[in-house]
Amino acid sequence: MSSSDAPTKVTKAASSSRGAPAPALPPSPMVTMAAERERSRGTFDLRRMQFAMGGGEQETVLKEKFMMELERDPLFKVDDIHDLTKDQIRERTMAKFSSLIHWIVNERVDVFQKRLNVIALLDPGFWTRYGVHMGLFLGAIRGGATPNQMSYWMDKGVLSMQGLIGCFAMTEMRGGSNVAGLETTATFDEKSDEFIIHTPRIEATKWWIGGAAHSATHSAVFAQLIVKGRYHGVKTFVVPLRNPKTYQLLPGIAIGDIGKKFGRDGIDNGWIQFTNVRIPREYMLMKHTQVTRDGEVRDPPLAQLTYGALLGGRCAMVADSANVAKKALTIAIRYAAVRRQFKSGNNELETLLLDYPIHQRRLMPLLAQAVAMGFTGQRVTAMYESMTAQLEDFGADSDEAETKTVLENLKETHATSAALKACCTWAALETIEKCRASLGGMGYSAYSALPSMYADQAVQATWEGDNTILMLQSGRSLVSSYGDALKGIKLPGGTAYLNGLPAVLTTSCPSDEATLRLDTLEQAWDCVSANVVRQAFEKFQEAQKQQGLGREEALEACSQERFVAAKVHTAGYLYRMFHDAVLELAKTEPASNGVVKTLDDICRLYGCWAIEENAAHFLKYKYFSGMQMDIITAEVTRLCAELRKSAVLLTDSFGFSDHIVSSGEQGININSPFGCYDGNVYERYFARVKASNPHNPVPPYFERVIKPLIDRQPLELVDDVDSIELDDEIAEIKAERDENEKERQAAQQAKKAERTLQKPESA
Amino acid sequence: MSSSDAPTKVTKAASSSRGAPAPALPPSPMVTMAAERERSRGTFDLRRMQFAMGGGEQETVLKEKFMMELERDPLFKVDDIHDLTKDQIRERTMAKFSSLIHWIVNERVDVFQKRLNVIALLDPGFWTRYGVHMGLFLGAIRGGATPNQMSYWMDKGVLSMQGLIGCFAMTEMRGGSNVAGLETTATFDEKSDEFIIHTPRIEATKWWIGGAAHSATHSAVFAQLIVKGRYHGVKTFVVPLRNPKTYQLLPGIAIGDIGKKFGRDGIDNGWIQFTNVRIPREYMLMKHTQVTRDGEVRDPPLAQLTYGALLGGRCAMVADSANVAKKALTIAIRYAAVRRQFKSGNNELETLLLDYPIHQRRLMPLLAQAVAMGFTGQRVTAMYESMTAQLEDFGADSDEAETKTVLENLKETHATSAALKACCTWAALETIEKCRASLGGMGYSAYSALPSMYADQAVQATWEGDNTILMLQSGRSLVSSYGDALKGIKLPGGTAYLNGLPAVLTTSCPSDEATLRLDTLEQAWDCVSANVVRQAFEKFQEAQKQQGLGREEALEACSQERFVAAKVHTAGYLYRMFHDAVLELAKTEPASNGVVKTLDDICRLYGCWAIEENAAHFLKYKYFSGMQMDIITAEVTRLCAELRKSAVLLTDSFGFSDHIVSSGEQGININSPFGCYDGNVYERYFARVKASNPHNPVPPYFERVIKPLIDRQPLELVDDVDSIELDDEIAEIKAERDENEKERQAAQQAKKAERTLQKPESA
Repeated sequence: MSSSDAPTKVTKAASSSRGAPAPALPPSPMVTMAAERERSRGTFDLRRMQFAMGGGEQETVLKEKFMMELERDPLFKVDDIHDLTKDQIRERTMAKFSSLIHWIVNERVDVFQKRLNVIALLDPGFWTRYGVHMGLFLGAIRGGATPNQMSYWMDKGVLSMQGLIGCFAMTEMRGGSNVAGLETTATFDEKSDEFIIHTPRIEATKWWIGGAAHSATHSAVFAQLIVKGRYHGVKTFVVPLRNPKTYQLLPGIAIGDIGKKFGRDGIDNGWIQFTNVRIPREYMLMKHTQVTRDGEVRDPPLAQLTYGALLGGRCAMVADSANVAKKALTIAIRYAAVRRQFKSGNNELETLLLDYPIHQRRLMPLLAQAVAMGFTGQRVTAMYESMTAQLEDFGADSDEAETKTVLENLKETHATSAALKACCTWAALETIEKCRASLGGMGYSAYSALPSMYADQAVQATWEGDNTILMLQSGRSLVSSYGDALKGIKLPGGTAYLNGLPAVLTTSCPSDEATLRLDTLEQAWDCVSANVVRQAFEKFQEAQKQQGLGREEALEACSQERFVAAKVHTAGYLYRMFHDAVLELAKTEPASNGVVKTLDDICRLYGCWAIEENAAHFLKYKYFSGMQMDIITAEVTRLCAELRKSAVLLTDSFGFSDHIVSSGEQGININSPFGCYDGNVYERYFARVKASNPHNPVPPYFERVIKPLIDRQPLELVDDVDSIELDDEIAEIKAERDENEKERQAAQQAKKAERTLQKPESA
Repeated sequence: MSSSDAPTKVTKAASSSRGAPAPALPPSPMVTMAAERERSRGTFDLRRMQFAMGGGEQETVLKEKFMMELERDPLFKVDDIHDLTKDQIRERTMAKFSSLIHWIVNERVDVFQKRLNVIALLDPGFWTRYGVHMGLFLGAIRGGATPNQMSYWMDKGVLSMQGLIGCFAMTEMRGGSNVAGLETTATFDEKSDEFIIHTPRIEATKWWIGGAAHSATHSAVFAQLIVKGRYHGVKTFVVPLRNPKTYQLLPGIAIGDIGKKFGRDGIDNGWIQFTNVRIPREYMLMKHTQVTRDGEVRDPPLAQLTYGALLGGRCAMVADSANVAKKALTIAIRYAAVRRQFKSGNNELETLLLDYPIHQRRLMPLLAQAVAMGFTGQRVTAMYESMTAQLEDFGADSDEAETKTVLENLKETHATSAALKACCTWAALETIEKCRASLGGMGYSAYSALPSMYADQAVQATWEGDNTILMLQSGRSLVSSYGDALKGIKLPGGTAYLNGLPAVLTTSCPSDEATLRLDTLEQAWDCVSANVVRQAFEKFQEAQKQQGLGREEALEACSQERFVAAKVHTAGYLYRMFHDAVLELAKTEPASNGVVKTLDDICRLYGCWAIEENAAHFLKYKYFSGMQMDIITAEVTRLCAELRKSAVLLTDSFGFSDHIVSSGEQGININSPFGCYDGNVYERYFARVKASNPHNPVPPYFERVIKPLIDRQPLELVDDVDSIELDDEIAEIKAERDENEKERQAAQQAKKAERTLQKPESA
């Protein structure tokens, strides 16, 4: 967009157009996308690509079925959400259960889960609200209840939300990351065979509890178990909150609304204070730790492992991040295929945003990253299946060996999933913001859907483990893996590259010609990943040996290096997962349909771009020379231009543009006029704005505040107006008249300051 | 925060606390900041630092005066803004004029401007609404009106918003960057001596027009001048929109509300369509181009230069970006001085967030950047004063030479201010987001004020020139500067380092010991800036010579390189400006008060951190070796720890924490419980949440949507409940009973999928 140097531009335009005869209408760009041309430029079979991206034909078809059912469900109307109040959104979110409860109760769980994944993209607030009961509350019971307790809560209706809606009361006002530091107490009263749940101080107030403000009747409360005056750590207790018939609060329960949040207002987060609330002993979940009638505490060899359950969530968040990013990119890319700006040369039409190299640079690498996350999500979800299954079967009766295995798996899983969750949720958030900005002013309109997407996504970086903390966890485990590798212990999966020590550390690109070979890129990631981990490991050792710090302190001392290690390691991990996925597809997919070729280009783009993004490390550890980095940069630019040809078709392959969209209606899965399939952007957007903002003949608050201002009686000092120096001429005359030098300088000051008041064109 | 590996942690905690006797209350952190200790650790004289940061004693005292006046003005109440609807916010914004109009009319302009800068931080929406009339509308008239026209509009009340409120109708639906491409027409009708203002098509609808939806009676309309069937380029016309008495729309005017935006809902952006609207010929602003009674068009040697006026705005945005970033950092740093998480070693208390190296790394470099922007803002505003004065005096009668000079100044000014505006507004946005995230979950609460700060700031990257376009403009000018430098033309100001060609390109750090010397850092920036500009220049030449592209196409081909050049150049520019400011202060400030020493550390931190952020270039162009980059990184970490001592006192020096805050009330300029001066975070936050969300005995929508769900009659299929496989035991029994192998796999599938439904702890 080099031709946008405003002043020069205007001069040029003015002179060029001066004296030009006026046509009936001034020259104007095409306002809709040359849809056929855009789509015919695509270099692959769309349907096959949809299957590849969607995880197979069956998955894709099922997703499309759910989309249609949702789109036609009046309760899932979304085109008006941007103008609803918090309370309206919350009510609508709750109302949606009435049309979903049938599926919740009767649909096979794995099928309903897929339905829910579609809903999650459409309405993150509902997804959260549903997940609080079915995921967190029920999950806590499933993870912590004995078979008898389980069937007790099933009889109460936990499976069907009938007579009982649950919430998950772990987090306290001081924050949720440090579970062992929770302050809510559960004191066993032997006399009455009850636990007394109590909130000792303000900061121990349960906070952010989804569903607590309005919808929940019960909560799974994390509290310090106290028996016979002794602490036994944090356990889980089911505590009734409201009378399910009247929804009145029960004695000793104080609940309030957390109120307005950045996003996800569909979920009614609340705070809870317990004041000497008594529950039967049996309401403590005793699958792991047990408290007997006479106050004997039977601890399992290992404290509760409900954490295992959170891991699944993290893997799901990788897939979800991919989908969120794809949704944002669908909007940004389709708009860029419609929007034209600035003529170049003698072209009749202005240039499409998508044809500007810089705009391709803004969007295509993000597309590659989203696809990389998508394939990685498919794989990690499968990867952790077996481990989670182990956790499920794990109980108080398990022996030492079993325990040890579970713990080791847990550690490995935790490390990998932690950094992946962090990097992917961050990447999705960044993608939304960059897509939003790429729409220019239109990205600031709520109806572009990108502002609310950003606000909804932002929390993903915080909950289920603060991203920064997760990165450090991952870095900590990489450091210890490095130590293991030095001891010759063979490392599995994602850290296998450390088995190549020490040789891997000093590899380098064999030649300039070899720079772009896929095996070179693979080796480059291995080399640099190994080096950043080494850097952290050595900083850690140095802190212990030279500074004489203890293990924990030494880990703190190298936290920056751990963070960097986790970041680079994860980027390389995503590249390898993506590359493996492409190789696997190549086995089944015929070359003729172009799917593998296109994915290969996308994979290469991701690999090269990620190297560019982390260039400092590749240069510092001398895998690539400066010249070779230039080759990488040129390749990124080339691939961006190459993939631009398929850009619109690729958005189709993400599967948001189902037949409903192509028929001309808004696709609910996009819910943005700028992302519509047919590219009729301006009409759709204008229609949305008009529908959402009914016309007022006179401004609503005219009588109250505008009239009193514009129609007011002259102020006393108004005759003095020419002393205000708001006008050049006046100021000058005044300045001349003025003998006081100081006063004259003030006048200059005034002109200066007044100028800095100039405001933006789009204000 | 290494001790946060949840499972391990829990195990440890459980075992360590097992059997520990229970005190009256479980261990708990301090909830308020050790305010005295934090502030006594500061290494400088607070008052002197406030003067340095605030641009002198007089400025600082004046700012504090305005703060108090605002804080006590009931119309400027802000603690409830997060729960107001769009219409409520807009009405309140408009109402504020009634308490400010006295100052608007009677306060000296430069003084009122300073008052406005304080308001801008408190209420960006009002600032915009005010700026639309006084800055854009009045600015357009001042820039484009003849003396007679000027006094005509003054008589109408333009200076005092009495009888007349204006808006600025430049942007059209297709976007505002390409002014020459605007489609609204102003056709001269000789018969009636009138212009006919007309909107030819939907995309030509005036869009985003601030104040149009509700408040404006007149607009300054940018339209294509057509006289005798010929185009004469885009000119400015004053077009009445509403009857000032009744606010009814005038004939041919269609206006609508743009509706919900990401932020700044206080400004009523609207759209306008003109249908054959007639205005007197005199309503065209004719300071530059004139249209005579008989339709003769007198063009100036140069098309209108209202653009010059926008430059002042850009410089002001640098200073504003600094203030916004400082506000966000005040909240994040003070909260980090209160919030404790995870015990390390045998400490009685948990560790303060601010004492974690990684948290220092998250916040302190951003603080250094904010201070760098602050001092740079002070300097550039002064720098462009003379040039803007030239523009002000520029008229149709100016001769060629004068024109040339103005154009050259305009180009230079445009280039520097363009990239600065872009980089600083982006930096402020990023700072807000990082501060928000550093609060953990609390950053997701609207009452932290950071979510709305982000939404309000986001538009700064788009209006007054899209940041990406501005970066490319800057890069374009750097490329041509490089060409000039090769021709031996001496370059001024920010690009002076190019005068050192070619030697500057090959300089490198003399020795490891010299790495951190300030003159080394200075030279490093010169060398690397020169190299990235060279890279863009050579790519540009190559595109012309080898690919045979035309100038414009060649510039497109190197747009990525131009972008990088502008980015690195601007980072170095900020460092030099900051460094110069410190040197200047050193002349007057006694070393004894520690101000210069502290600023010197901050400047060094900014310089080193910015090098770290752009490390790839410093390595690629071999100014620093990998080992030397490690020295830089270690220095960043060291300086973060060093400045952490003064961190809270530094937030005080930003001047948001006036005496009103310290007396215990909320400082309106912060309006966040997490940024309160005394650190009594949790009580203030809880109070805010309760006040903003009055208690409902029963959820508002209980009868409508909750009762029907939880109290519903059993669904037909509910007896079939144990086929739902939501329970392990049942699933297992079922699986055993089941002979169909396929069905059994599905059951496995189900367990898997159901698990991925686990949801976040803070949901």
